[in-house]
Formats: sequence, structure tokens, C-alpha cells
Amino acid sequence: MANSLRLGIAGLGTIGVGVVEVLQRHGDKLTRQTDRVIELKAVCDLDRDLDRGVDLSTYDWFGDALELAKSDKIDVFIEMMGGSDGIALASVEAALSSGKHVITANKALLAKHGNELAQLAEDHKVSLNFEAAVAGGIPIIKTMREGLLGNDITRVYGIMNGTCNYILTKMQEEGLAFDVVLKEAQEAGYAEADPTFDIGGHDTAHKLALLTSLAFGTQVAFDEIYLEGIENIKIEDIEAADELGYRIKLLGVTQITDTGIEQRVHPTMVPKHTAIAEVAGVTNCVAVDGDFVNKIMLVGPGAGAGPTASAVLSDVVDIARGILLPPLLTKASELKPYQRAKMRRHEGGYYIRLQVKDHPGAIASVAARMAEQGISLQSIVQKGTSATDKTLMPVVLITHETTESAVRKALENIKSDGHADDNTQMIRIESL
Amino acid sequence: MANSLRLGIAGLGTIGVGVVEVLQRHGDKLTRQTDRVIELKAVCDLDRDLDRGVDLSTYDWFGDALELAKSDKIDVFIEMMGGSDGIALASVEAALSSGKHVITANKALLAKHGNELAQLAEDHKVSLNFEAAVAGGIPIIKTMREGLLGNDITRVYGIMNGTCNYILTKMQEEGLAFDVVLKEAQEAGYAEADPTFDIGGHDTAHKLALLTSLAFGTQVAFDEIYLEGIENIKIEDIEAADELGYRIKLLGVTQITDTGIEQRVHPTMVPKHTAIAEVAGVTNCVAVDGDFVNKIMLVGPGAGAGPTASAVLSDVVDIARGILLPPLLTKASELKPYQRAKMRRHEGGYYIRLQVKDHPGAIASVAARMAEQGISLQSIVQKGTSATDKTLMPVVLITHETTESAVRKALENIKSDGHADDNTQMIRIESL
Repeated sequence: MANSLRLGIAGLGTIGVGVVEVLQRHGDKLTRQTDRVIELKAVCDLDRDLDRGVDLSTYDWFGDALELAKSDKIDVFIEMMGGSDGIALASVEAALSSGKHVITANKALLAKHGNELAQLAEDHKVSLNFEAAVAGGIPIIKTMREGLLGNDITRVYGIMNGTCNYILTKMQEEGLAFDVVLKEAQEAGYAEADPTFDIGGHDTAHKLALLTSLAFGTQVAFDEIYLEGIENIKIEDIEAADELGYRIKLLGVTQITDTGIEQRVHPTMVPKHTAIAEVAGVTNCVAVDGDFVNKIMLVGPGAGAGPTASAVLSDVVDIARGILLPPLLTKASELKPYQRAKMRRHEGGYYIRLQVKDHPGAIASVAARMAEQGISLQSIVQKGTSATDKTLMPVVLITHETTESAVRKALENIKSDGHADDNTQMIRIESL
Repeated sequence: MANSLRLGIAGLGTIGVGVVEVLQRHGDKLTRQTDRVIELKAVCDLDRDLDRGVDLSTYDWFGDALELAKSDKIDVFIEMMGGSDGIALASVEAALSSGKHVITANKALLAKHGNELAQLAEDHKVSLNFEAAVAGGIPIIKTMREGLLGNDITRVYGIMNGTCNYILTKMQEEGLAFDVVLKEAQEAGYAEADPTFDIGGHDTAHKLALLTSLAFGTQVAFDEIYLEGIENIKIEDIEAADELGYRIKLLGVTQITDTGIEQRVHPTMVPKHTAIAEVAGVTNCVAVDGDFVNKIMLVGPGAGAGPTASAVLSDVVDIARGILLPPLLTKASELKPYQRAKMRRHEGGYYIRLQVKDHPGAIASVAARMAEQGISLQSIVQKGTSATDKTLMPVVLITHETTESAVRKALENIKSDGHADDNTQMIRIESL
């Protein structure tokens, strides 16, 4: 048996404890399968006395993550603390600088400091692995860093936030309003007390930023992501989508366009009767379009202690087997600067819901304003008047492929004509 | 730049040519990403003059695969000929024995000779990679050999034959009979002139045998697979399934049971409104249940030149990066003998369609025969009489979880009571 691989875990929350549990349950098997003794050597957290439901008595205890990161007792530093800066950043930097491999599930950290940390790992010839940072138990990092290299990737998209997908699924299945479902989700523990980070799309954006770099060889550019959350999705939209053959999902999408890379997170219409439309509840998925593989999609749990620990162990195994890759696939020094495509140049179909004022010629005028911008309509649905205001008629339009700027211009004109009220909804349709 | 990796391809059919195309299009990128010059050195086929749509003039030409396999000019032998024996087997053996890495998409070869070939590869410390052999462009081999090692796998299942899924999807979407759709599929090139190998489930079984070994550390045991094809699926079954909330798919399933491993290929009911139910047409998918990850599912193209070449290149990249793993994950010498679970011990729900004779007490008697075996019914649907024979009433039963032997015994008794004709259909329901 070759030499052992000594692990240290910093952060003993649910996920850190999950990693301890896998190592305790499957340690022998992992050793057989990698020909290395994979040994949890040290753990680190503030409160030593808390009962975490696992026996930690055989591991060295550290109260300071930075000290663990620098310790000679470990070969791999597993960062399970979270946070985009502070001790997480400092300890990861310290571990890499002292020649230790690092494994982290911390997308916020990598979205902010990924370029520098990748460089640091390469400088010290160690791994910086982060399978668990994107879509939990789904092996998307391995797939993109190893499995799809025979392809030029053209687009990556997916459902990468369980809270949003849980809320949208519940709204659709039970016909409940966003606020009602959000409250329910908070009570069930599927949404945070302050849900902004999830429902505003920020969490999805962190993950998307990493996938963009892997897919296109560009520097991680989290700040450049176009962002819309799900907070304005109305039950009317869910129902209209259903009637028109769509489901609404919060997607993160990154794709190559003529003018640069489009990174966007927003509610998106996807056709019913597709696998992605049936990715329900807290489940995640990521799809990759490549020139040879065409399209693959990976579906699985995007969070939770078990799935996250499974992903962390995949990273451990790679290190045990001596697999050492540039963290972002492309060497950090060769990552291209990120070139952002203008969102107004985005091309696609659009769903538009307007509250049109009930007077003669209003709908004709709306249609004319669309035509003026060269937008052709695939369908237009108007049924009676609004339940709350009889002077308004809800109208739903589905456009053929057009540009974001054309749609925005048409909507501005419709508004300034005075034919619609302020409650206009616009949701992009993704071609799968 | 480190030394080059020299490839030789034996077999220049669609798939072999696909591999040439990836190398021509993405060779430079692959070199950048692996720090190795990945160089196609030699190709091999019988007919040198055939126009294959790619420029092959710069490669050494071999007419004999065995000669290429033994040649000093290559480091990696890519077997794209097919066939479970003959020249494919001989040349793969020769390549491994002479210290060359082997990549193959040949599931028939591996299902039959996988144990010995894995041993041979390990003896010579070379790779035997076969990502393309199972589910085409889907990275399921990498996922099982690397990505899920932190788990005990309990079950693997999937749609692994595009022809069958195309036929079942068409039947469902267009309400056409099996024979009609098969003929259409043959004309469209989605089914072979002799379709037995696909529709009888043999192709799925080849792939399943490999997944079983990877999942459970057992010797490849293709001969031990329980096999039922889709040839007896009637449009009545598709329609009844739809009404009851199911889709019918040909699944390959391998799972651990108390009495051994159940490997089975058969038409299966899966609930509608799940991602797997929406895996349509020639698309494949594979799902893996593990104790920590819970479940992941990979979806993508199961065949075709591009996706297959993408998978082959993933294998090439792993070799270029120096990743050397036991082909079947567990070392060949440590693979456990396969222990087959009795199919009669299989537990699950069942769909049963009977043609019950239209006389008093017939249905009561059928129900009593089920109850006698301890089978409890979830639903029973009977509507009018058969369109072709007014003395027969089609009855559809859905059972709660029970055993295969109970169902078979009940059906025997119903038959010997004379209450049903010979056209009894039984389809297993898979819990997802």
C-alpha cells in the first residue's frame, strides 16, 4: 500500500459532518479502490463540546482554521466553513501556499477569488477541487474538466438553486402565489429566513460564473452576470405558461455569442414534456451543449449533507489517485479576459404578459408596436378582463425569435401609448 | 511540452471517422489542455480507396488491425471495429499485451471478455477505457469509476437503447402499433433490418453487464441477465399506462438484493411527470442510486458518431493525463464472483392486463386469485368489452409492491380457472 493521504476538515456544520460520515463508513473501500490509506487526521471548529452526532474523538482538534491549513499533519485541507472572504479565504490561501491540496464547496469564495486561487494552486502544484460547489452531488465539474474535452462547448445551462425550483414547482403544482409558497418553504427549511440570496439568483450566479470559466476558458467574472430573480413571477404566469406548453424555471445560462459571452440568470420558459421541465422540487440539473456530444444533462440533488459529501469525496479520490489538473481546466495564466455580450443583443423567444386597457384598438396598437420592431408573434391569447380591475384585459404574447432590445423598445412604446398599465411581465424562452 | 501521445484507430466506419474528425478539429486545444501532443499516427481499415469524407492522407495506413495493435508507432490502440470476438478481440489482446493503452466502444466484446481483458490491462499497467461503450456520449463510466466512489451503490438503471426508446416514444405519441413504428424506424435508419439485437434487449444487456461490475465489484456476468424485449408491448398497454399515470420504457436495471444481484432488462412502467419519463426518442439516460448522493441521472445521446467520438476523446484525455485506473474499478483479481438473485424473488409493483371472459363472477374470481397470493391491488380498471371479441373484457390491474413469484402464481391460477384468455400482459413498475 502506498503512503497515506491525510485529510483535515475545517468547519463541522452539516456538510463537514457529512464528509466525516462518508470517511467513517466507506474509508476501507476508498482505500481499496485508490491504493492509498485515506485518513481523516484533523478537524476544526470553534465549539468542541457540541454533539454533532459523530464520534470525533480520534481526530486532532483545531480551534483555528488557519492553523490547520498550515499544519504539517495534513496533506489535504477541506474547507467547509463558507463565506467569500475572511477565514475561508485566508485559510485556503494558507493551505495552498504551504503545498496542501484544497477541497471546497464554497462557490461564493471561488466566484470572487477563483482566478487568484487557481493561480496559487498551480504555482504550488497542488489541487484546488470544488465538485461540491456547483450543483451539489452532480458530477458537473468532473464532466467539464475531464469528460467533455473533445468538444467546443457552446452553452451551459441549468437549474442550480433548489430553493427557487422548489418554490416554482409548488406554485405550478398547487396554484399558490409566490409569497404563500415562500413562507411554506421557509417553514419547511427549504428557504432561508432572508431568502434574497437564493430567490434573487445570486447563488445560481456564483455557480454559473465557475461553469463559464470551465466552458470557455475565461477568467471567472461573477460581477458580469445579468441577474433577475423569481420574486416577480405571478401565478398568472405559471398558469399561462402551462396553457401555452411551458414550465417556468430559474435558469443560469452561459453561452457564446457573436459579441462575447452571455452569462444570465433569470426566470425562463422551457417546453413541457422535456426532462428539464420535470426536474422538480429541490433537484438540480446542468446541461452542456458541445459540438460533438450535442447535449448532455446531469440531474441530481443540488444540496444536502449526503450529496455534498459525495462530491467532496470524489475530489478526495482524485487527489489520492494523483490526478492534478488546473482548477479551472485552462491554466490560470492562460485564462482569457471575460468579454461580456450585451444583454440587449440577446436573441430568443419571449413571453410577454400585459394588462391592456379595455378600449377599442388597444390590442391592435399593441400588435402594431411589436410589428414595428420586427417582432413576429407565435401566439396571442386574450380572455376576458382582469378579475381585480374590469377595465384591464390580460393579454399574453409569445414571440418568435427576436432580440431583447426589440422587445424592450416595443414594451416602452406600448407603455408610452398608454395602452397598458405598469404590470408588464417579460420572460425569456430558452431553446433547448 | 511533454512527450507526445500517439494514437492508432482500427475501424474507419462512422464512429472511427468521428474520432478522426474530433482530433482534426480540436487537436490543438486538447494539446493545450493536457500538456501532451495528442497525435493521430495511424489508421486501419480494409478499403483504402473509399471516400470517408475526411483527409486521411497524413496518417500511416494499416490493412491489418493486428499489425496496428502490435506496432511500435502508437501508444494507444483505438478499437472501432466491433464484434465480440474475432479480430476485435485478437487485436485488443495484442495491443494490451504489447503495453499499449486500449480504447474501445465495443460493449459486446467487453460483456463477453471484460474480466480477462481487464486483467490483461492491469498486468501490463495500461488503460482499457470504454466510456463510449455504455450510453454513447453520456459520461457514465467516468462517473462510476471516479465520481461516485464516496457511495455504496444500491441500484443503477437506465434507458440504454435508442432504437427501443424511439419505438416506445413513437407508439406513445402517435398511438401507432409496434409493427408499424418498427417499420418506420427501419426506414428512418433508427432500427436495423434485423432489429432483434436491439428490441430483444440484448444491446441493453451488454451495457448493463458492465455497469453491474462497476457498481458492485463483481465479475462481468452478461449471461446472467434476465431479458425481456419490447416486442410484445401493445398499444393498449401504452394507452392504459398513460391513463394510469405511467410511461413504458425499456430499462436495464441492476440492483443489490438480499439474495444477490438482480440484473434485468425488460419493459418497465415509470411514473409520468418525471425526468426519465420524458427521456424521449433515441436519447439515453442512466441513473445511479448511492447511499450518500441519493440519486443522480445522466441524460444524453446514446449513439451516433459525434457523441461516441466525444466519449472516446474523454478516454484519450485521461490517458494523456496519466490517469491509470483498473478498467472495472475493482482490480480484476479482486472482482467477486457474480451471485444472481432469483427473478422470482423480484419485488415491486406490477401492471397486469388480462382479457377476462365476460361471464358472471369472472372478475371477482380474478381478484380472489390475486388476494390468495397476498397481492393487494392499487387499481383495477375495466371498461366495456374488447373491440375484436365481444366475449372478452380487457381488465387492467396495478398491484402494490409484491413478488414476481406471487404474480406468476396468481396468473397461472387465473388461467387454469379458465377466466382469462392467453393474451395476458405483465409489466413491472419501477420505483424511482
